[in-house]
Amino acid sequence: MNHKLQKVSQWMKENDIQVSFITSPENVFYLSGFLSDPHERLLGLAIFQDEEPFLVCPSMEVQDAKNAGWNYEIIGYSDIDQPWELIHNSINKRLSHVQKVAIEKEHMNVERYEAITYLFNGATFVPAEEKLRKLRMVKDEYELKTIRRACELADYAIQVGCEEIAEGKTELDVLAAVEYALKKKGVNEMSFSTMVLTGANAASPHGTPGLTKIKKGDLVLFDLGVVVDGYCSDITRTVAFGDMDDKQKEIYDTVLQAQLKALEACKPGVPCSEIDLIARNHIREAGYGEYFPHRLGHGLGISVHEYPSLTETNSLLLEEGMVFTIEPGIYVPNVAGVRIEDDLYLTKDGVEVLTKFPKELQTIK
Amino acid sequence: MNHKLQKVSQWMKENDIQVSFITSPENVFYLSGFLSDPHERLLGLAIFQDEEPFLVCPSMEVQDAKNAGWNYEIIGYSDIDQPWELIHNSINKRLSHVQKVAIEKEHMNVERYEAITYLFNGATFVPAEEKLRKLRMVKDEYELKTIRRACELADYAIQVGCEEIAEGKTELDVLAAVEYALKKKGVNEMSFSTMVLTGANAASPHGTPGLTKIKKGDLVLFDLGVVVDGYCSDITRTVAFGDMDDKQKEIYDTVLQAQLKALEACKPGVPCSEIDLIARNHIREAGYGEYFPHRLGHGLGISVHEYPSLTETNSLLLEEGMVFTIEPGIYVPNVAGVRIEDDLYLTKDGVEVLTKFPKELQTIK
Repeated sequence: MNHKLQKVSQWMKENDIQVSFITSPENVFYLSGFLSDPHERLLGLAIFQDEEPFLVCPSMEVQDAKNAGWNYEIIGYSDIDQPWELIHNSINKRLSHVQKVAIEKEHMNVERYEAITYLFNGATFVPAEEKLRKLRMVKDEYELKTIRRACELADYAIQVGCEEIAEGKTELDVLAAVEYALKKKGVNEMSFSTMVLTGANAASPHGTPGLTKIKKGDLVLFDLGVVVDGYCSDITRTVAFGDMDDKQKEIYDTVLQAQLKALEACKPGVPCSEIDLIARNHIREAGYGEYFPHRLGHGLGISVHEYPSLTETNSLLLEEGMVFTIEPGIYVPNVAGVRIEDDLYLTKDGVEVLTKFPKELQTIK
Repeated sequence: MNHKLQKVSQWMKENDIQVSFITSPENVFYLSGFLSDPHERLLGLAIFQDEEPFLVCPSMEVQDAKNAGWNYEIIGYSDIDQPWELIHNSINKRLSHVQKVAIEKEHMNVERYEAITYLFNGATFVPAEEKLRKLRMVKDEYELKTIRRACELADYAIQVGCEEIAEGKTELDVLAAVEYALKKKGVNEMSFSTMVLTGANAASPHGTPGLTKIKKGDLVLFDLGVVVDGYCSDITRTVAFGDMDDKQKEIYDTVLQAQLKALEACKPGVPCSEIDLIARNHIREAGYGEYFPHRLGHGLGISVHEYPSLTETNSLLLEEGMVFTIEPGIYVPNVAGVRIEDDLYLTKDGVEVLTKFPKELQTIK
């Protein structure tokens, strides 16, 4: 078994859990290497304390799972099979008695829950999410390598976006050009809906790109990410189109200094809250506290938002191998919206910045 | 109450259900007019037999719900509130006794199910999905108008794609140009991942667009859809780049005739299975039966796949007001892949075709 599955088995032993039945595509991918979007069909991974795991998927995906390197049992089912019966049989071959089962309670729907509680009548069902979130926080070498590639493409996207800015172009014009360039590089999935926001739109933390035209004197905010082999990047840059006034410059500089101070403070053993507060206090002291309404950052990997969560109350300690964002922002309605976001890898000495596009205010003439 | 909510209340009376608690964004939108993607946060719509309904959403979305025309109670909750307690109080104000509750068992997760079963201790929980799928099948005037606009944009997308085809361009080049043109028109969501497939890729019903270059003598298959104000279109066209050989022409013509025959047969009161079989038998008789591995079509609306499902076994009768696709295909490995798909509105006399891009084989020189 790979080291990820072994860690789950170890946790199951410690908590007297006989079966874990994992159903979210993200966690199945994390634990098995098999990346699949089964839509409404059932995808599942059964894990035991000592017995071999097995995978359940539509029969037309069995070969894909093997190609992805899954060497254990695979139950392929057709649209007329009863997958839960097949699962029951495969579990019965391994175990005679099941008392406690771990499932993803935030992912599994009621219909499936009724099926699985019927199979394991009388068993207790406990949540598996928290354990998996913690496992996923610390990345291995392969994961880091993949995220690096996603970050390189994110840098490239910002570069393309900056080159596209011109008088009279709309947010959607620039957005379209960015995604066009990425598709030409073979990218077929973004981490989330790409944001290109300007003027008053950028000054709202929930703006949506539209037909607003970019004009001289505006800031343009890009927030985007690229998915590479199942792993996400996530970058934000805010650039100037033409000359900025003193207020815009002050806001930009406040965000940048807050970001740099927070980066500097990241070390294994430091609580997430401390990092958030370093940036937040810098912004508060500059008088913009009320205009920074969100957390400082979040982990990323298979999901674009995962653990650790960098909030002012999270006492979780940073750990070597974590990958996360730091993205302070200031949004003053009708004045300016600025956010600067990097993706970071935590080494034993501090952060390595994975997104490399310059952060000093870039001015497009 | 709008006529959609009234129909749910009527169904609840007939089935002795005191509360329906709807949580999928699609069904909340359908019933309330409020389109929202709450991510991991709770969105809910409570419906009663006679009492007024209420909506539950994050407090920052309360104004959006009002703007969408929701005139009843809205429970807005912050990240530190306990939304289930607020829900419980609002229900208790309306009803003293709850025996049967309808929920979406395919949508609601176990965590929320545990919360709601705790609130209504001892109540029975029944599925609401089937009823809502049936209600959503038949479209009203506003829905049809919106789908028409989505179909116009889908036609435009195919036009752009055809103009983009040229020797040496890749599938992703053409795809990028199509989405670029749509974004320039203000489109910010596709119904699903756009497909542009050529050569051997098009001959697999599960191909993924990539860096394959289009070359003379190949067919190019487009499958795409556009979302307009929450409603989807879905079109497929297959076009020729340069001259086709006799086999390719024969396959194209077989698919086209199958599609036209099926369109012709659609009338209120005809079973879905009959329509599927008309197209399927035409393809079988031409000797390509084994190369048409999927159903003939599906309903569309807020979801790109909804009721009715046009399969060879579905005895459901077509009804005036339904909107659905008809999309026969033939995929002969290493020879040709052809699919032709229209979106249709069923009137009392037969179908009105909403997607208008020509279906006679278009040849790009």
